[in-house]
Amino acid sequence: MSEPALRPTIADARRAAGRIASHAVRTPLIDSPELDEAAGARVLIKAENLQRTGSFKFRGAYNAVAALTEDRRQSGVVAVSSGNHAQGVAEAARIFGIRATIVMPPDAPAMKRERTVRSGARIIAYDRSSEDRDAVAARVVAERGGVLIHPYNDPDVIAGQGTAGLEIAEDCAARGIRPDMVVVPCGGGGLSSGIGLAVRDRFPAASIVLVEPEGFDDYARSLASGRLETNPKTAGSVCDALLAPSPGPIGFSINRANGAIAVAVSDAEALAAVAFAFRELKLVVEPGGAVALAALLSGRLEVRDRTVVLVISGGNIDPPVLRRALET
Amino acid sequence: MSEPALRPTIADARRAAGRIASHAVRTPLIDSPELDEAAGARVLIKAENLQRTGSFKFRGAYNAVAALTEDRRQSGVVAVSSGNHAQGVAEAARIFGIRATIVMPPDAPAMKRERTVRSGARIIAYDRSSEDRDAVAARVVAERGGVLIHPYNDPDVIAGQGTAGLEIAEDCAARGIRPDMVVVPCGGGGLSSGIGLAVRDRFPAASIVLVEPEGFDDYARSLASGRLETNPKTAGSVCDALLAPSPGPIGFSINRANGAIAVAVSDAEALAAVAFAFRELKLVVEPGGAVALAALLSGRLEVRDRTVVLVISGGNIDPPVLRRALET
Repeated sequence: MSEPALRPTIADARRAAGRIASHAVRTPLIDSPELDEAAGARVLIKAENLQRTGSFKFRGAYNAVAALTEDRRQSGVVAVSSGNHAQGVAEAARIFGIRATIVMPPDAPAMKRERTVRSGARIIAYDRSSEDRDAVAARVVAERGGVLIHPYNDPDVIAGQGTAGLEIAEDCAARGIRPDMVVVPCGGGGLSSGIGLAVRDRFPAASIVLVEPEGFDDYARSLASGRLETNPKTAGSVCDALLAPSPGPIGFSINRANGAIAVAVSDAEALAAVAFAFRELKLVVEPGGAVALAALLSGRLEVRDRTVVLVISGGNIDPPVLRRALET
Repeated sequence: MSEPALRPTIADARRAAGRIASHAVRTPLIDSPELDEAAGARVLIKAENLQRTGSFKFRGAYNAVAALTEDRRQSGVVAVSSGNHAQGVAEAARIFGIRATIVMPPDAPAMKRERTVRSGARIIAYDRSSEDRDAVAARVVAERGGVLIHPYNDPDVIAGQGTAGLEIAEDCAARGIRPDMVVVPCGGGGLSSGIGLAVRDRFPAASIVLVEPEGFDDYARSLASGRLETNPKTAGSVCDALLAPSPGPIGFSINRANGAIAVAVSDAEALAAVAFAFRELKLVVEPGGAVALAALLSGRLEVRDRTVVLVISGGNIDPPVLRRALET
């Protein structure tokens, strides 16, 4: 993973859109007068929590599985994930009728685990603190066969996530809206790079803002230093979906070329955004999926009088976590 | 209220759409592969929980307030409501800068009460069991002045709710979908009659199905007998939004002309639908807003291989009620 040899193009994102069309949900771009008023801006929400499997991950996973040759695909697929990519890969495998094996930390949220099992995947646990998840995945592939679908450092996965950006661009254009800024939750950078690729193809002046959990700001530090920085920890944020150890090189090269900037939000801010989404937007959002909204609500973005697209990336939240968000 | 003298037309609904356009949310018509699979049908969700104020009621309330002459409007507005119509009227009044007084039962959900107050309305409590709410409202109008905005028996309110039906029809037509059935939560019948009016203008073969809470099936009995029947109780269902005492005559004449049928669901089925919406659809839905979904999930509708539009009508649920739904 030294050089991003296979950076996807807008044509790859368009091809992905054709592949996923009859299986993925074309998620809405939702207005919210309440949020406009709270932010003093025009805000549009790309609600990827309404995507099949409850997060955007199905887009990239399905596209990557669909892009495999029939022979390779029949060997099955393997993925490493704390839950949303797991569900995406498991559901794509179910649709294609192939085997899926998921390497998952034992502290993954119960809902994510259950929904992955429901799609028919086999789950193999690993220890986040003592085992290298990529090494565990490599061992699974060696022992059981199958193609590893990386959660973000894969051009087909990024092209798949880019379909969310194509939809944002199409819906904005159809409604005569020119987005000034697109704000995207960021773990390994697959979603933000895919969306940036697609949105800036149509709206080259749109700025791309990545939002990370505090203490897991590898992307911000990598953009500052120009090389791939790593997080000191692998766990310890309520945003379980955003704890990738460092940026994926392919997405990083795209985000960097797009001049993306990154901001961080605290757990408390992420939970406050989960509560706001529940009370005001009537959307079920998980903490990691709420960080772009959190960045807006906590005043970390300069948005007054601008047009902002906020991506809500996932909604697989366990009820006790929602309760915690509503009680704080 | 003997004869429906002022039955609204499709032209009234179109005029309402123009009035509300810059204030209401054009709510999405959402696909759900999970729901399609669960129901063995093509299901589209009209998500009115994503409407401004968290329910469809804003449409009719805003249209009715906008339709007043300037002089009448300046005298303020009065409404009787357990919460969603209250919020709609209060928010419309706020936008027009006029006074709103809401007659509300003291057992109204906390969230609905708080959001009504937040919009600047004055709340007057009444006792559901001993006082006639219409009499209380008449007294308020006599004492304080203002125009009473009825929650459903008003042609402007019905025309406003009809804008949801116009959007369903437009979105279906744009996507090449012909709905076989539109399933709508039903209290006094304002939403169902408005939606029926608009959908059947474009799709005359679409059947209209109303869903009521068990024990509050005044609409089903009225459709059967041909006259306005009354519920024996005024409280006692988890579906607080659907406890109107009897059908509004104007909407009833529309629903009857449309050949609407009505089914009832239990509290347990409504709560199971709230939980399904949380877990699978990632939508926050209140029990009364979930009854159309409940009718589908509980197998009360013959939908196999048909195309069904389900209306989710509101999302103003207090957290303890959601907890109860998730624990059953």
